[in-house]
Amino acid sequence: MNDIFATLESEVRSYSRTWPAVFDRAQGSHLYGEDGTPYLDFFAGAGALNYGHNNPLLKRKLLEYIERDGVVHGLDQATVAKAEFLSTFHENVLAPRGLNYKVQFPGPTGTNSVESALKLVRKITGKESVISFTNAFHGMTLGSLSVTGNSMKRGGAGIPLVHATPMPYDNYFDGQYPDFLYFERLLEDSGSGLNEPAAVIVETLQGEGGINSSRPEWLRALYELCQSHGILMIVDDVQMGCGRTGPFFSFEEAGIQPDIVCLSKSIGGYGMPLATTLIKPELDVWEPGEHNGTFRGNNPAFVTASEAFRQYWSDDKLEKSTIAKGERVGQVLQEIVDTHGGAVAKGRGLARGLGFEDTNVAGKVSKAAFDRKLLMETSGPDSEVLKIMPPLTVSDEELEQGLRIVRESVQEVLA
Amino acid sequence: MNDIFATLESEVRSYSRTWPAVFDRAQGSHLYGEDGTPYLDFFAGAGALNYGHNNPLLKRKLLEYIERDGVVHGLDQATVAKAEFLSTFHENVLAPRGLNYKVQFPGPTGTNSVESALKLVRKITGKESVISFTNAFHGMTLGSLSVTGNSMKRGGAGIPLVHATPMPYDNYFDGQYPDFLYFERLLEDSGSGLNEPAAVIVETLQGEGGINSSRPEWLRALYELCQSHGILMIVDDVQMGCGRTGPFFSFEEAGIQPDIVCLSKSIGGYGMPLATTLIKPELDVWEPGEHNGTFRGNNPAFVTASEAFRQYWSDDKLEKSTIAKGERVGQVLQEIVDTHGGAVAKGRGLARGLGFEDTNVAGKVSKAAFDRKLLMETSGPDSEVLKIMPPLTVSDEELEQGLRIVRESVQEVLA
Amino acid sequence: MNDIFATLESEVRSYSRTWPAVFDRAQGSHLYGEDGTPYLDFFAGAGALNYGHNNPLLKRKLLEYIERDGVVHGLDQATVAKAEFLSTFHENVLAPRGLNYKVQFPGPTGTNSVESALKLVRKITGKESVISFTNAFHGMTLGSLSVTGNSMKRGGAGIPLVHATPMPYDNYFDGQYPDFLYFERLLEDSGSGLNEPAAVIVETLQGEGGINSSRPEWLRALYELCQSHGILMIVDDVQMGCGRTGPFFSFEEAGIQPDIVCLSKSIGGYGMPLATTLIKPELDVWEPGEHNGTFRGNNPAFVTASEAFRQYWSDDKLEKSTIAKGERVGQVLQEIVDTHGGAVAKGRGLARGLGFEDTNVAGKVSKAAFDRKLLMETSGPDSEVLKIMPPLTVSDEELEQGLRIVRESVQEVLA
Amino acid sequence: MNDIFATLESEVRSYSRTWPAVFDRAQGSHLYGEDGTPYLDFFAGAGALNYGHNNPLLKRKLLEYIERDGVVHGLDQATVAKAEFLSTFHENVLAPRGLNYKVQFPGPTGTNSVESALKLVRKITGKESVISFTNAFHGMTLGSLSVTGNSMKRGGAGIPLVHATPMPYDNYFDGQYPDFLYFERLLEDSGSGLNEPAAVIVETLQGEGGINSSRPEWLRALYELCQSHGILMIVDDVQMGCGRTGPFFSFEEAGIQPDIVCLSKSIGGYGMPLATTLIKPELDVWEPGEHNGTFRGNNPAFVTASEAFRQYWSDDKLEKSTIAKGERVGQVLQEIVDTHGGAVAKGRGLARGLGFEDTNVAGKVSKAAFDRKLLMETSGPDSEVLKIMPPLTVSDEELEQGLRIVRESVQEVLA
Repeated sequence: MNDIFATLESEVRSYSRTWPAVFDRAQGSHLYGEDGTPYLDFFAGAGALNYGHNNPLLKRKLLEYIERDGVVHGLDQATVAKAEFLSTFHENVLAPRGLNYKVQFPGPTGTNSVESALKLVRKITGKESVISFTNAFHGMTLGSLSVTGNSMKRGGAGIPLVHATPMPYDNYFDGQYPDFLYFERLLEDSGSGLNEPAAVIVETLQGEGGINSSRPEWLRALYELCQSHGILMIVDDVQMGCGRTGPFFSFEEAGIQPDIVCLSKSIGGYGMPLATTLIKPELDVWEPGEHNGTFRGNNPAFVTASEAFRQYWSDDKLEKSTIAKGERVGQVLQEIVDTHGGAVAKGRGLARGLGFEDTNVAGKVSKAAFDRKLLMETSGPDSEVLKIMPPLTVSDEELEQGLRIVRESVQEVLA
Repeated sequence: MNDIFATLESEVRSYSRTWPAVFDRAQGSHLYGEDGTPYLDFFAGAGALNYGHNNPLLKRKLLEYIERDGVVHGLDQATVAKAEFLSTFHENVLAPRGLNYKVQFPGPTGTNSVESALKLVRKITGKESVISFTNAFHGMTLGSLSVTGNSMKRGGAGIPLVHATPMPYDNYFDGQYPDFLYFERLLEDSGSGLNEPAAVIVETLQGEGGINSSRPEWLRALYELCQSHGILMIVDDVQMGCGRTGPFFSFEEAGIQPDIVCLSKSIGGYGMPLATTLIKPELDVWEPGEHNGTFRGNNPAFVTASEAFRQYWSDDKLEKSTIAKGERVGQVLQEIVDTHGGAVAKGRGLARGLGFEDTNVAGKVSKAAFDRKLLMETSGPDSEVLKIMPPLTVSDEELEQGLRIVRESVQEVLA
Repeated sequence: MNDIFATLESEVRSYSRTWPAVFDRAQGSHLYGEDGTPYLDFFAGAGALNYGHNNPLLKRKLLEYIERDGVVHGLDQATVAKAEFLSTFHENVLAPRGLNYKVQFPGPTGTNSVESALKLVRKITGKESVISFTNAFHGMTLGSLSVTGNSMKRGGAGIPLVHATPMPYDNYFDGQYPDFLYFERLLEDSGSGLNEPAAVIVETLQGEGGINSSRPEWLRALYELCQSHGILMIVDDVQMGCGRTGPFFSFEEAGIQPDIVCLSKSIGGYGMPLATTLIKPELDVWEPGEHNGTFRGNNPAFVTASEAFRQYWSDDKLEKSTIAKGERVGQVLQEIVDTHGGAVAKGRGLARGLGFEDTNVAGKVSKAAFDRKLLMETSGPDSEVLKIMPPLTVSDEELEQGLRIVRESVQEVLA
Repeated sequence: MNDIFATLESEVRSYSRTWPAVFDRAQGSHLYGEDGTPYLDFFAGAGALNYGHNNPLLKRKLLEYIERDGVVHGLDQATVAKAEFLSTFHENVLAPRGLNYKVQFPGPTGTNSVESALKLVRKITGKESVISFTNAFHGMTLGSLSVTGNSMKRGGAGIPLVHATPMPYDNYFDGQYPDFLYFERLLEDSGSGLNEPAAVIVETLQGEGGINSSRPEWLRALYELCQSHGILMIVDDVQMGCGRTGPFFSFEEAGIQPDIVCLSKSIGGYGMPLATTLIKPELDVWEPGEHNGTFRGNNPAFVTASEAFRQYWSDDKLEKSTIAKGERVGQVLQEIVDTHGGAVAKGRGLARGLGFEDTNVAGKVSKAAFDRKLLMETSGPDSEVLKIMPPLTVSDEELEQGLRIVRESVQEVLA
């Protein structure tokens, strides 16, 4: 059946090359091939499946909704499902954290959310330029691509990507260089040639860029720098939000309140397309319809999202379990590093990675793991980091099984 | 319950202002308010609901798939559901029409598809510039916005939108001016100052731009102009494809084979997010992963899409019925025009409109219709066109009922 | 001695290839080769030598000034010579024509003037986009290049030239198309996709673009279109000003007062670098030093310019003689056209041309004329126009001699 | 007479505000007001008067040339004067230094030269992006402005200035930060988001940016970085070339051979407009006429330039005297710094400055000096540096007199 993809699907396809299987069903931490073979999933839809595949708690609500002919497609019309999304999100997520944001539905993908955020900060400030960070990933449409670091992906734009300047991400110089020295100096020097920025856009942990985790104090300093220079701060929490690092928002530990927050991937709960742009009320200066999109109100995803808020965010159990499991992963990764050398354990929460000095290793380990029916992808500019992102709902047994395979696969490749 | 939207949702919300009701359920040609009030839907999700709301034939397949834990989220992994999409699309749509396209899944929305098309034509040709048409609408992300005409939406970009030059759409000068005279002259004159274009992007019927229908001979002449100047042709069939004008592709009548075709909205069949970019095989020069996106493989939508291909495109019944119903709508609109004057009947197939000289009328008629529980939106640069797009599956009774309301509403406003 | 240029000068050199002679002296309408051979000059420094080479009236003043150590270099410091320039320009040129402009010295070349004009209209309006015309030529620096038509020269920029949209120049469609139909329609249609322009920039007669002369009524209609849409109008009179078409400003016949006028080439009188940007007083919103340049105050050129104003513009003798001589040239060109066919006589005043259908002819005629010691260049996108621009001070004998050579050279090539 | 400037000249005028005198004559190191008052000139046309005002050695040649009707205006035609320029430049400047460059005449100003250099590096490499440095100044036309640091001047562009990224100039972080750490890291990291640069453009000493002198080892490291990454190196020697820092080229001390060198200001010798772009022969890929300009061949300036090469660059007397005089200036500035504190002595050769911590001081000192009939301007992003640039031909007595006034003026302001 693989032939059909080679014949009919574009050459751009990618994961189907990494993992040459045809998948049929999925449940929890597992995908199943068409022949029934189970694959343990430490990839989790690149962060879109924090609650696992086809989570049974959410599935029940989804089936009921479809069965009773709840509105499926509703553009940005008011629906009962959307009202439920707004209120459960407010009650379970925003209010308990003392956060006050208006919710925009900018279209159902992360890049829609980033594009809307970029448009809004430019509208608010009247400035064009945006500061991005080295190895950032924000999406594949033109605006998002211009703040993305990867040169292959940038090259795909076919036009010069301008209006953005990259600044060094946390620890980009391994401590040789004081944080923000360069950025701050450029901002303060009216002769620096830096176009005055409307905003910074930042991931608190760069998933695609190589599982680079920023320190809370770095993030806080960035926030303060922005505040003192009248620069808006966008946190792109598309991949690292919805509990991936432990707390619902990845910036909570830093104690900051970004001006705009982009959410997508796991926000819908069930792996269906949904995205939101969270905007501080005083910055919500959109004209009605100034940004739109056909699928911005994906109602089945509202339903599963609402249930996810209720099931997983009405208390701190998931957060605590994610942190605990993350520490277990970190421990095993550190043991691997200590055993083999030439590597570094990266990440926090359940966004973890193994960065190898030899840039060929991570890809080989990923392949060796796939042979053992474990799915893990690589990340980083040279695909040099093995990326480990199980569902947050992974069981302890599954986690241990997967970590065993990680260990064996590294062993096989480095032996 | 409307309060919740005002309090928690961004000011950018739009349709919920046009139609101040909270919708709960939907079936076929009707949406139902939370109090059970039925609304006849001549809007059809702006073209995303060609097969009606929650189409029972597709619903059955969707429920089965979710029930049996078919893969929901799979990035661009190979899945049984995607294979089925590719093969049913090939068998029922492409092959019978003698079309040969590779299928890219660029992300689940129309603007994802347009962005991927723009990137690809620039990559293929090494040129940056793209020709768009007056009153075009292609989407709200930065690349798509640069080829969109509407000045309010363009203004939202906050940066200059460049790399595109607008040319006059068919009949832009009411016949005062030979087709393509200007475009052709600029192309042939090496001193014209026109940046050599990589491609043209065109809708065969402009839905957002005011239900402006191009003639097949105009489209054919454009195609030939492109061929003779080495310019690629992108047809954006996001709103007008999937049978909206009768045939599956809106360009079929013109007898052309565009280099790239963008599809979204009704391609998924059930109103769930899905999009494809169709690429002539020799132009499919993407590197693996050069364009990506989390939700490009929305598997439930593959399932409903496949069933829609089988149910509606294995024969020409839907095409014929759409044309017949469209003619009935056209007849009634012409009667209205003949009765009242100051208006013109526009469109073809089931993409119809009434363009009023007085730009205030269409909005008032839409409101009068909503009071009568009929949903219709307006379009055009000054919202001067009443846009009439029922589901293609609308029954004759529903159609007549809706047309009666249209007639009454116009009557009320113009009396 | 030609070797030294091949060895030491860049490949970009151009006129030295067209006319492979090494010139030593020059006087009036003649250049003299190093061996003393006289060449009759119907090129006149591409419009920089309206008063002939080394005009004796101006020469006297120049020698005196240099001899007595008048300030040569003075940036934009106030000097006696600049004061004289300003007052003689005001008295002899501006005041008698009822024109009221502030004078900016933007740097000593035409492109400096165009760049300053473009910056100023963007500053005034807050808009980025500028309308240029097909086959326009405004200069080789980046801003000027973006409003220039020639594709070879545009290609030299190495970056996409954006922020400008070309509109059809007068008679671009040989009367098939009403003037400004397209431009006006795009401006009035908020969905046209045309970025709202800050300004138009126009030459009243395109010298480099092929001696294309616009009609006064076309220019007037453009002026009125600009006025009614709040668009600023820049006339680039770098080549056609200073009497080339008869009156001092080439737009006088049209009876308009452009918002900004660019002058250079013959403004200095003696062929030395000088340029001015004329700005309506209410639009002179520059901050001090916001635009600058080392050579904006070329004092020797102020001296010769002032004398030129006194000698040639205190009455209308030069204007009348230019028109008369121009008519004589036009008459001869028409006779040539009538004799040979396949050509058209173009231009007005002493900016004249012969446009040949066969694009190889003009270059050959230019070469044949050079063999006869007459200098004429070609212009137009395909170098298809023989460009005839003698000094305005050409004597009747020189004119007849040159026209005889033109006639013979055409005869030789077309025979 | 000042009234005439206020009435007729644009508000953009600048130096005439700093020094509210009307100058009439000039000789050597002095300008003379219309009433005959002598002003000692430690400004030297911002570097355009390295050989003093109206240098008598050059004046003789200029008068002869004009008297005998040598060609004044010749576009880029071959002339005897240009041949002489090329050969004397080659013999006296290039050959003795082992430099091999083709000479382009890009138009007569520094910004013309920079624009041509930027176009050429983009053409050669096919890349758009250029690296500039903090506090760089390269000119006021659009291309040059995009690589210039000053935010007020950048703002004047009225469009976003893109395609350039600023990097920290030498000592930008007072030694806190290893040279090129950031630049090198961005280049080596394919995920950095830095658009791959065609070239760097650098001044070896930033005149407008605040008399910031780079160290030879910094320049050499930059050169090597460029070489190893296939980046072209443009040295903008418009202000610092022609002996201003001692040697003819300011980069000689560093022992590098830049790919392209921009010269203007003093290259003509007599303060008349002239510029050259020096290009390594293998990079001279221009098409004939691909870059042009009316005044690129300013023949009187060729004559004075040639004589300057012969008089001042056939031996090393001027170079040595410049270095010696520069050291004397440096000594006095250091004494001032030692006396008053709150300041730093900057620069090398005869490009010197006093940088004050209190940004109001330099302007006041400049004014106090003007009251004492000494002309000095300020530079730096906040005009915080007193800029001291006498003609290189200043006599020892004039130098001492000027330095006395500097000392007194600082004393007056800081007392």
